[in-house]
Amino acid sequence: MVVAVADQIHNHVLDELPAGPRRTLAQAATAEFGRRGYHATTTRHIAEHAGMSPAGLYVHYSSKAELLFTISRIGHEAVLNDCLAALEDITAPAERIRVFVQTFTVWHAVNHNLARVLQYEIRALEPEHFKIIAAIRQQTETFAASVFAPLVSDPNMLRTHTIAILSLGIDVARWYTPGHSPDPESVGQAYADLVRGLLR
Amino acid sequence: MVVAVADQIHNHVLDELPAGPRRTLAQAATAEFGRRGYHATTTRHIAEHAGMSPAGLYVHYSSKAELLFTISRIGHEAVLNDCLAALEDITAPAERIRVFVQTFTVWHAVNHNLARVLQYEIRALEPEHFKIIAAIRQQTETFAASVFAPLVSDPNMLRTHTIAILSLGIDVARWYTPGHSPDPESVGQAYADLVRGLLR
Repeated sequence: MVVAVADQIHNHVLDELPAGPRRTLAQAATAEFGRRGYHATTTRHIAEHAGMSPAGLYVHYSSKAELLFTISRIGHEAVLNDCLAALEDITAPAERIRVFVQTFTVWHAVNHNLARVLQYEIRALEPEHFKIIAAIRQQTETFAASVFAPLVSDPNMLRTHTIAILSLGIDVARWYTPGHSPDPESVGQAYADLVRGLLR
Repeated sequence: MVVAVADQIHNHVLDELPAGPRRTLAQAATAEFGRRGYHATTTRHIAEHAGMSPAGLYVHYSSKAELLFTISRIGHEAVLNDCLAALEDITAPAERIRVFVQTFTVWHAVNHNLARVLQYEIRALEPEHFKIIAAIRQQTETFAASVFAPLVSDPNMLRTHTIAILSLGIDVARWYTPGHSPDPESVGQAYADLVRGLLR
């Protein structure tokens, strides 16, 4: 049975924020950072995109840096939590690997705009924000390694395979183009098959 | 026999430009675009990095867009040409695959700063420049597919494997951190082994 992972993936990740200006501004910042990069985006660009005044933005966020951190924290936690939730009731190692790869890949296809900001602007985070984000990323990597471990006994091999499989999923966000690329579910299935071949 | 591909990779890709201000400016632009993004970088930043006046820059490049195009063209041609050259005298399919993956991966580890500009600023190219770059990328993809084809007969599988294997190599540029990551040669060998397992 093929589970339609795409239907379970939260494609409105920033809805974690309550409806209102904080959410609207985070969505606007994701679009603007994605389009022209963090450093070229001003709080004025973000406020205008959200239909607010620049002064209005500062009622809700202290700085552009806080916006990037908010987006980064929610996004990184969402991919981790979606993967944890998808595997919660699955015990068979091969099936855990299949569902992990599919969930992680679909997440990066569905949320490609957000994921580009998460990945390509990580160096723009303030040092104290970076530490928190790095810790969430480490949890995701540790969880992924625990999923693959039953089929990869050598620790060095496990490290390489974990980096490579996460890398495959993350890089989907770079090339994914709606209307041109296959639907997220198909990419997820193809990559799950590919990783099954890899770990066979 | 393990060939030290890293020693054969041109890690001064922009040396294709003759020594002098055009090369110095292209190197400065690569560093500045990589650090703060294309849109946040001004020709003044680039000129200052190169130790020149802003007016001096315009003697050598008509615009910031021409600098990005120059860097992009040289970089994309270099990775294609390095892969073509590495496989020139190799006929055995498995060995062609091994050397291709190793060369492509090592290239992206050695040239991670340049590669980030090539990959993450592609949407910043002018439309007429984008067409030329897209054509070079298509050549690389077609060549890669021809290398993998002897071991992957199904055309859909071949397309997925080609995207995935190129994706793995490209994403090395995102996470590669000198002094923290293994040396480029080791990453290349690990990925060549991994792809051998995948296509087995």
